Amino acid sequence: MAATERLVIVGGDAAGMSAASQARRLRKPDELAITAFERSHFTSYSACGIPYWVGGRVEGPNALIARTAEEHHARDIDLRMRTEVTELDLDRGRVRTRELDNGGRESWTGFDKLVLATGARPRRPSLPGIDAPGVHGVQTLDDGQALLDTLAASPGRRAVVVGAGYIGVEMAEALVLRGYQVTVLERNGQPMSTLDPDMGALVHEAMCRMGIETVLGATVTGVLTDDGGTSLLERSRELGGGRVRAVTTEDAEYPADVVVLGLGVRPETTLAAAAGLPLGESGGLLTDLAMRVRGHDHIWAGGDCVEVLDLVSGHTRHIALGTHANKHGQIIGTNVGGGYATFPGVVGTAVSKVCDLEIARTGLLERQAHAAGLRFVTVTVEATSRAGYYPGASPMHVKMLAERRTGRLLGVQIVGREGAGKRVDIAAVALTAGMTVEQMTALDLGYAPPFSPVWDPVLVAARKATGAVRAAGS
Amino acid sequence: MAATERLVIVGGDAAGMSAASQARRLRKPDELAITAFERSHFTSYSACGIPYWVGGRVEGPNALIARTAEEHHARDIDLRMRTEVTELDLDRGRVRTRELDNGGRESWTGFDKLVLATGARPRRPSLPGIDAPGVHGVQTLDDGQALLDTLAASPGRRAVVVGAGYIGVEMAEALVLRGYQVTVLERNGQPMSTLDPDMGALVHEAMCRMGIETVLGATVTGVLTDDGGTSLLERSRELGGGRVRAVTTEDAEYPADVVVLGLGVRPETTLAAAAGLPLGESGGLLTDLAMRVRGHDHIWAGGDCVEVLDLVSGHTRHIALGTHANKHGQIIGTNVGGGYATFPGVVGTAVSKVCDLEIARTGLLERQAHAAGLRFVTVTVEATSRAGYYPGASPMHVKMLAERRTGRLLGVQIVGREGAGKRVDIAAVALTAGMTVEQMTALDLGYAPPFSPVWDPVLVAARKATGAVRAAGS
Repeated sequence: MAATERLVIVGGDAAGMSAASQARRLRKPDELAITAFERSHFTSYSACGIPYWVGGRVEGPNALIARTAEEHHARDIDLRMRTEVTELDLDRGRVRTRELDNGGRESWTGFDKLVLATGARPRRPSLPGIDAPGVHGVQTLDDGQALLDTLAASPGRRAVVVGAGYIGVEMAEALVLRGYQVTVLERNGQPMSTLDPDMGALVHEAMCRMGIETVLGATVTGVLTDDGGTSLLERSRELGGGRVRAVTTEDAEYPADVVVLGLGVRPETTLAAAAGLPLGESGGLLTDLAMRVRGHDHIWAGGDCVEVLDLVSGHTRHIALGTHANKHGQIIGTNVGGGYATFPGVVGTAVSKVCDLEIARTGLLERQAHAAGLRFVTVTVEATSRAGYYPGASPMHVKMLAERRTGRLLGVQIVGREGAGKRVDIAAVALTAGMTVEQMTALDLGYAPPFSPVWDPVLVAARKATGAVRAAGS
Repeated sequence: MAATERLVIVGGDAAGMSAASQARRLRKPDELAITAFERSHFTSYSACGIPYWVGGRVEGPNALIARTAEEHHARDIDLRMRTEVTELDLDRGRVRTRELDNGGRESWTGFDKLVLATGARPRRPSLPGIDAPGVHGVQTLDDGQALLDTLAASPGRRAVVVGAGYIGVEMAEALVLRGYQVTVLERNGQPMSTLDPDMGALVHEAMCRMGIETVLGATVTGVLTDDGGTSLLERSRELGGGRVRAVTTEDAEYPADVVVLGLGVRPETTLAAAAGLPLGESGGLLTDLAMRVRGHDHIWAGGDCVEVLDLVSGHTRHIALGTHANKHGQIIGTNVGGGYATFPGVVGTAVSKVCDLEIARTGLLERQAHAAGLRFVTVTVEATSRAGYYPGASPMHVKMLAERRTGRLLGVQIVGREGAGKRVDIAAVALTAGMTVEQMTALDLGYAPPFSPVWDPVLVAARKATGAVRAAGS
């Protein structure tokens, strides 16, 4: 009988545990032993669900857990919780671990195959007071629980969210739902820098109407803390520092009972870097199409710790999204298990909402298209989600980029209400297929008055873009 | 100066008037004179909106009119309402017309270019009593107004809808909203014969839960009328016949105060047939890619009176849909106006709803795939519209057909609640692009918990279909 192969997985969330599950489907325990290490208290959870848990729309944290540690154990996956991998020893094929709840006991575990799924960590600028109690990132369920603990203990109802990207606007909504008066501080000239500024401006207007104060061009300089105050004295002593009181920018001071950092994330590749594995410009691991770390036949990586190929620009990019992490895990598990699967890349689709505003994009923004060396035209249209006469028809703005001369679709951004967000999928598939905007005008999309006007908003944009491509000539 | 060219358009609804408008955009009145004939009281309207008007969700008929006759006149389009074209004289380049409100005055109008946009007519079986007062088709705004008049005068609240296709189920919803007790009589074994029977069965179950009695395998044999009854005596004398009282099938009798025929439509090509123009198997006009009637350089046809190329099966089919009619009109107007545009064909997308149930399909059904000579696998999955933990997540069933050996996507059917219908667009674009189900598994679709699970339901189906293709081998 062949020796049992040893698979070690670093990181027990979406990518890592999808890989574990898929590998176990394909290989029995006597063929493949699977050991996974997770340093937090939770496994296989939806980090994307944290804003809705914080907002009280979702029962957490259990509802966010797709599969518990016990369920993994029952499937012969040796998942070790609260165990941090502290070193990758690639030469000897082993990882060093530390048990966080067991006096920091260290040990080594050998592997034949290794999967790195170490995720991402929130950007946390080095500013005075940034580590004060009451200042929270929201990357893990542990983070979510800590924030909820702060909210429960919070004496006031003023929240400052730093950053108006996806996480920032979703957390703004969550805090509004919790009854907080929310101020969002954004360094750029518009919220949602994942959109072009003209589309970001639509988000800004809508946030204002929702009563979310959004301060643009605001550079945060620090966090002020309150070391006094009778009721908080014990807590601040216990935590060894003053509790958050306000956030300062170059121009002003914003009182805050709680601060949420929504500055995005960067790949957590400290271990990989120390082991000399190849990293891209953003610090994410670089892989081949089978999700193997480049140059390493027995090491795979997936999820928020890798860079992915952007099929439109041809560059690799870091995009932290649960849907990619799940796909990566599935593909890694298939390959580790002896099957064959590849991840061709992404087109940069993302969708989000803030209250009833839906925000979506796919493909390239103007600045990304410029950076990729593309010449292009842009159009923006306003159209309705349903037939104009049908109840609930709501306006949406669709912006479309198309390559000059060829008319190839390069990107779409949508801002609107119900029915706006998922319309981006039409463009995501068209981008993947390399369609021109003229080809898109003939797309046979679902039409009935409750679902769409006779010309779907995406088709209206495609028609206008077709005209713009012609007018621009070669 | 060149002589003014004369364009004559037969039929003043979506296809005809879109063509007129687009041609006018491209050519001035002294270059191109446009005359359009419409026999009904309404022009440029959304026939698809009639069920919502009847159901009271839409103010009609005016809300359903995209552009009035006066608006067309103001743009130098000579639209003649209530004027029926009775003959096409292709040899002499003229059409004979009859003014329906002017004593039936007849005249001839010459053309250099002709557009046929004569639409479709409801199927109306030859059965005893089928023309009785109270029995209605719902193809035109005139039909909708007549039905509403009947409802207003109706002494009871029992409605029978004959046919459980798109029109049938939409009218069933409308009559439920009007407070009617609705019985739907369907000849086939399931409602929605535009779906496979297993998916139709899901619609049947849902309709039952809505309180819509749906009798399957019911062959209608006639309509019983009531010539007596004091209150109706005068009305029935005036109309020269008895008013509807019940619908009979081979097995039973269903009392009805109003009857709606939802048996679908067939192309209205009587004039075209008489003029010897080429018709397909369904009786629709056959055109080339520029929407010219085959073999006739100066005659175009579009909308519900033509057959369109089904890009998946390679056959031409008759599909009456406002979205196609608008595209056809746009393309015809461009070509008539001296530009260049083509209609490549359709993939058979349709979406509908009955109350809160959304029903969608694209591509081929099983029986259509068989008829096209294709060998294929099918899978069905149940998944949720949003992350399972997010409020409002609702289950949807997705059925997918893929070609054996190649794995090429052949068709998708979806039945679910909110968010189910327009998901079919993902598959519509993938079909147009000729994607395989395995390629689809990597699609970068919009993901966030309020919009989708990490694996969009369409991707879940694509994954299962990929497995089925592999398992089926070659």
